[in-house]
Amino acid sequence: MQYHVDGELVDRTEATVSVDDRGFRYGDGAFETCRVYGGRVFLWERHLDRLRRSCETLGMPDAVPEDIDERIDETLHANDLSEAYLRVSVTRGVQPGKLTPSETVDPTVVVYVGRLDRGGADGSPVWDAPAVVERVETRRVPDASLPATAKTHNYLNGVLARIELRGRDADEALMCDADGYAAEGATSNVFFVDEGRLRTPELGSILPGITREAVIEAADRVGVPVETGRYSLERLRSADEAFLTNTTWEIRPIAALDGRAVGGGPTTDRLRAAYDELVERRCYSE
Amino acid sequence: MQYHVDGELVDRTEATVSVDDRGFRYGDGAFETCRVYGGRVFLWERHLDRLRRSCETLGMPDAVPEDIDERIDETLHANDLSEAYLRVSVTRGVQPGKLTPSETVDPTVVVYVGRLDRGGADGSPVWDAPAVVERVETRRVPDASLPATAKTHNYLNGVLARIELRGRDADEALMCDADGYAAEGATSNVFFVDEGRLRTPELGSILPGITREAVIEAADRVGVPVETGRYSLERLRSADEAFLTNTTWEIRPIAALDGRAVGGGPTTDRLRAAYDELVERRCYSE
Repeated sequence: MQYHVDGELVDRTEATVSVDDRGFRYGDGAFETCRVYGGRVFLWERHLDRLRRSCETLGMPDAVPEDIDERIDETLHANDLSEAYLRVSVTRGVQPGKLTPSETVDPTVVVYVGRLDRGGADGSPVWDAPAVVERVETRRVPDASLPATAKTHNYLNGVLARIELRGRDADEALMCDADGYAAEGATSNVFFVDEGRLRTPELGSILPGITREAVIEAADRVGVPVETGRYSLERLRSADEAFLTNTTWEIRPIAALDGRAVGGGPTTDRLRAAYDELVERRCYSE
Repeated sequence: MQYHVDGELVDRTEATVSVDDRGFRYGDGAFETCRVYGGRVFLWERHLDRLRRSCETLGMPDAVPEDIDERIDETLHANDLSEAYLRVSVTRGVQPGKLTPSETVDPTVVVYVGRLDRGGADGSPVWDAPAVVERVETRRVPDASLPATAKTHNYLNGVLARIELRGRDADEALMCDADGYAAEGATSNVFFVDEGRLRTPELGSILPGITREAVIEAADRVGVPVETGRYSLERLRSADEAFLTNTTWEIRPIAALDGRAVGGGPTTDRLRAAYDELVERRCYSE
């Protein structure tokens, strides 16, 4: 496998960054994880927009290179990949040894890829089974400490949430916000259905997931009423249906939350079909 | 300059880590910054202890290599350094592409050094002048989101705090906790003197600084009463004296906080003398 590091294709085993790179020293960088279906990066315009906004939040508004699309294409072609996982990282690069970053940035740009077959309608999802979810003690980092809209290399919050699951029979960790309301999973947004409505935590203290947004739009298209708000864990546990979303999992039903069976259902199925249709339309038509 | 990367001395320009290193991808690692005076790492036993505890918090209790002292010595000798800055980073290394870390860890260990002449009694401090401090909007990440006792590569909180100072005539950013009490600077702990007492924010939502601890002990030795607690910014601004501490700055008076002159004073001077004496005793006498 070849990665694209700072403008050059290099073998994965030789893809490195300086130990002085601020991405390594401080997690001082932004990233996106995307799916490539049929050779096209799904919803790339949205990922690119979020990546640029993340970089802007980090005070380096011009860090995403102009030719990022070409770098991605080159990487996919070099590896002969049309169904893939794609990660794009943009860090603040190497700067003199001070915490205060200079306004002049020579960013480090890494394009990672890996083969990932299409799930959904015509394939099997990347997950083996619906998710077993448990609430963890680790609280989602508040927006006032790290802006929730930025997807950054500071990912220890999610790592620590997952570590709490050690020795427990669960595969996603659900974090609450500082007030105890459901926020998000370590790598996923959460949805549930009750009273005939699809509900998901409102923006403000969660990452605005691209898949979350696409699912809300899909719900609008198929006529499922959607509401965002602040919800208790108890409400999620007693929901009629619940599922997680992220770019790689797409829509993944929640088998159980804190030991209480929840599962997917008719609304989840409709949304999965609508999501597959979107993938089909965006990536496999003509 | 040579760094020590994963057991080998390498020229700084060739000191790299894999782009798949979790230290780079997620800031998934711990570090310490130390001062080397007279060829000895000042208060190393305390830094090592905190580094081990940080790694334990990250679920990798055995990640600090047994021979870390030798690696440090080798690096100092190779660069012929006796007055130096030293950084030791221990990350979770490369693992298969999942956020959940494996319990088996092959850590990445980097020893960074740079020349830094002794400040204090017999030299000039690394800072040019007392600090000009401003409170920033960015709130210190709460302990419930990232344990405050762990010093990790997730350092964006401090980076964002410093970015807020752009265009302002200040060199340290003071963050408050979620409740609005003074917490700490982007890279420093804060102290102030009023009513004849030395005061500093209590542990819980701040990094337990090694210099902070040494200053509290020095105050005990020289008979300055110390109190820890939760303090408003207003109280700090109207203090008789105030200063910042960190490993490289040691004790640095605060010239002004939010435009209000504060400055050092007799207590700050006594503590600086006591701190210099500690450095002298620990590092320059046999």
